[in-house]
Amino acid sequence: MECQDYGLTRDTERKNLNLNPLQRGGVLPVEARKALYEFSDGYSVCDYCAGRLDEISKPQINGFLDDLARFTNTDHARTVHGAREGKFAVMHALCKPGDTIVIDGNAHYTTHVAAERVGLNMIDVPNTDYPDYKIKPESYKEVLDELADQGEEVSLVLLTHVDGNYGNLTDSKAIGKIAHDAGVPLLLNCAYSMGRLPIDAKALNADFVVGSGHKSMAASGPIGVLGLKEEWADVILKRSDRAVVKELEMLGCTSRGAPIATLMASLPFVIERVKKWNQEVRDTRKFVDTMEKIEGISQLGVKPTEHDLVRFETRAFDEIADKHPRRGFFLYEELKKRNIVGIKRGQTKWFKCSIYGFNKEQKDYIGEAFVEIADLYS
Amino acid sequence: MECQDYGLTRDTERKNLNLNPLQRGGVLPVEARKALYEFSDGYSVCDYCAGRLDEISKPQINGFLDDLARFTNTDHARTVHGAREGKFAVMHALCKPGDTIVIDGNAHYTTHVAAERVGLNMIDVPNTDYPDYKIKPESYKEVLDELADQGEEVSLVLLTHVDGNYGNLTDSKAIGKIAHDAGVPLLLNCAYSMGRLPIDAKALNADFVVGSGHKSMAASGPIGVLGLKEEWADVILKRSDRAVVKELEMLGCTSRGAPIATLMASLPFVIERVKKWNQEVRDTRKFVDTMEKIEGISQLGVKPTEHDLVRFETRAFDEIADKHPRRGFFLYEELKKRNIVGIKRGQTKWFKCSIYGFNKEQKDYIGEAFVEIADLYS
Repeated sequence: MECQDYGLTRDTERKNLNLNPLQRGGVLPVEARKALYEFSDGYSVCDYCAGRLDEISKPQINGFLDDLARFTNTDHARTVHGAREGKFAVMHALCKPGDTIVIDGNAHYTTHVAAERVGLNMIDVPNTDYPDYKIKPESYKEVLDELADQGEEVSLVLLTHVDGNYGNLTDSKAIGKIAHDAGVPLLLNCAYSMGRLPIDAKALNADFVVGSGHKSMAASGPIGVLGLKEEWADVILKRSDRAVVKELEMLGCTSRGAPIATLMASLPFVIERVKKWNQEVRDTRKFVDTMEKIEGISQLGVKPTEHDLVRFETRAFDEIADKHPRRGFFLYEELKKRNIVGIKRGQTKWFKCSIYGFNKEQKDYIGEAFVEIADLYS
Repeated sequence: MECQDYGLTRDTERKNLNLNPLQRGGVLPVEARKALYEFSDGYSVCDYCAGRLDEISKPQINGFLDDLARFTNTDHARTVHGAREGKFAVMHALCKPGDTIVIDGNAHYTTHVAAERVGLNMIDVPNTDYPDYKIKPESYKEVLDELADQGEEVSLVLLTHVDGNYGNLTDSKAIGKIAHDAGVPLLLNCAYSMGRLPIDAKALNADFVVGSGHKSMAASGPIGVLGLKEEWADVILKRSDRAVVKELEMLGCTSRGAPIATLMASLPFVIERVKKWNQEVRDTRKFVDTMEKIEGISQLGVKPTEHDLVRFETRAFDEIADKHPRRGFFLYEELKKRNIVGIKRGQTKWFKCSIYGFNKEQKDYIGEAFVEIADLYS
C-alpha cells in the first residue's frame, strides 16, 4: 500500500510568533531538545528498568519524581499521559460509577469526559457569567451545602486552577477549605498553572494536583503530572494483585519514551521560569492595556488579569471584517504579514491569546501590531 | 530548589548493537527523526485542531488513521498511548466490573493489569509448559467449553499474538474462530507483531487489534494503535453526552504531540519492512543455529522460531560464571568489549534477545561474538 503525504512540517508555527495559548507553555528549551535527540527511539527510557518506570535510576526517573513532588509540594508524584489522564486516574480510583462530584462551571471539557468515562454524576458550580465568568468560593459552598441538605454524598470536588477560556485564577485555598469542611477531597486541575506559576499543593488545600507537560511545562506531548498527598497513596497508587509491583491506575508504567525525557530536561528551566511569573502577569496586563486602547476591544474574565491567557471581545476587528474584501481572514493575514500566528483564521468576534515566554521586544511588537492593524482601517 | 543530575544521555544503547528485544522495533528511521524535530514542542500536532485529534488534517492525522486501518485491515483505527492503554479502552468499554474474560497463559503483565483495573475476572488458558510454552487453539476451546458448561458468560477473549517471553506466534485465526463460535469477540495483542509482520485483522478473526508504536512500529514512545471492526465502533468509540464530538475511551484526544508525528513519519518505512519479515525469521533461525552450536545453549519456545525475539537457556555461560572472577558479569563485559549490549548485567542462566533490523554483517557478527566468548573459556 501507498501512504498519503501527511505534511509533517510545522514551519509556520515554529518560525513565527505564535500567540496560541495552547502552545506558549510547551516550547522546549535547548536542554529538552538535546534530551529528545538522546531518547527519541521507542522505549528509550526503559533500558535499565527493573520492573517499574517510577523506580528507574538511569536516566534518574526516581530522583526526578522526588523533585517533581517537591516542586508541587505533594507527597508522591507520577507522570501520566496528560492532565486528563491524571484526572481520570484519580476519579477512577476514588469514585464508583454513579457517584457525585462537584466541578466548576469553567472546567475544561476533559474534566467532563474523564468523569463521564468513569460514569460519574457532575454538579456544576456556576461562574458569575459575563463579563468576568468568575468562580467564587461561596458558590462552591452553596452547592455543597445544598447537596448536603439533599443527603447527597459527594465523592470529589474538582477545581480548575486556571481555566482555558478566560485565564481566571481561582482561589484554591478557600475552595479546598470548603471542600475539606464538607469532608470531601479536592482535585486541582493545574494544566494552565503548573510550570507557569508556583504550585504549593498543601498551601492550596489540594489533595491531588494534575499538570500538563505539553501545555505548561516545556515538554513534548503527551505527558502530565499527578501529585498527591500521602493519605491518598493507598487508593491512587494501589498495586496489582497479580503483577505485584505494578500500580493499577498507571497500568504499570505510563510515559515510556521521549516525553518524559523532555519533561526531565526541562524541569530546572521550569523551576527558574515560575519565579518570573509576576513579571509575565505584568507584561500581559500591559499588553491588555495596549489592546484596550483600540476602541471596540475589551478583555473578558477577571480584571486586571492574573494569567497570560487572555480572551478579548474584538468588535473593532469584526466591524473591519464586515467591509473587508477578505472578510474575517484579513486579521489572520495582516498578522501573518507581521510574522504573528496563532489566532484562528477567519475569527474576528473574539479570540484568546498569550504572549507568555516572549522577550520584552517581542511582547511590545505584538501589541503594536494589533494597534497598527486597527489603525489601518480606522 | 535544585534538581539532581538525571543523567539524560543514552550513548551506550544508541552507539552499540543493542540486543534488547524491547528496543529493536522502536528504532526511528531518519524520516521520523526529522518529524520529531518539527513536532518536538508541546501540543505540536494541535495547531489546526477543530475539536478532534483524529480529524486533524494538518498534519494529516485523519488520512494517516485511514492508512493505519488499511495497514491492519480494520474498519477504524485510533492511536492510543500504547498497547496496554488500547487493551484497557476495549475492556473498559466492553465489559463491566465482575465480568469474565479468557486470556492466554503467555499474556503480558499489562493484560493482567488492564483487566484488573477494570475489575475483571481472568481465566487463563494454559500453555504447554517447558520447553515450548505453546498456546494451542484446542486449549482455548476446552476452557471456553468448560465455562459454558458452568453457565459462566465470557465477555471477551484475549490472545497475545506474539508473547514477550518466548516469541511464540499464536494461531489467531483458529482461536478467533473458536471465540466467535462461542459468541465472544477476540482482542488480539499485536505489540510484538504489528509493525514487524503483516497484520490482517479480518483474516486473523480479530475484532480488535492493539499495537505498540514504541515496541514494533519505529516510533517514539508512548504510542499505540487500536484497530477495530465496524460492528464494535458504537461501543468503543462512543461519544460524550456533554462534549459531543469527543470519544469517551480516548478521553477526547490521545497522542497530542511528538510520538504521533514519528509514528506517521515511520508508517511508509514500516509498510516496507513488514514485507521483509520472512527474511528476518530466516536470519533469526540461522542465529539460533549458531548459538545452539555452543554446547549447553538451547532455544526455548516453539522451534524453529517464528519470531525475532528468542529466549535461550544458557547453561554454558552460567558454568563459566561459576568460575569467573567477574562471576555473572563476565558475559555483559565480554559482549560490551565487542560493542554488543542489551543482555542484562549479571544474567547468565538464560536471556532473551533479538537481532531484528540489523544488517547481515551485524547479524553474523553477533552470533560469532557469542561463539567466540564461549570458546574463550572452553
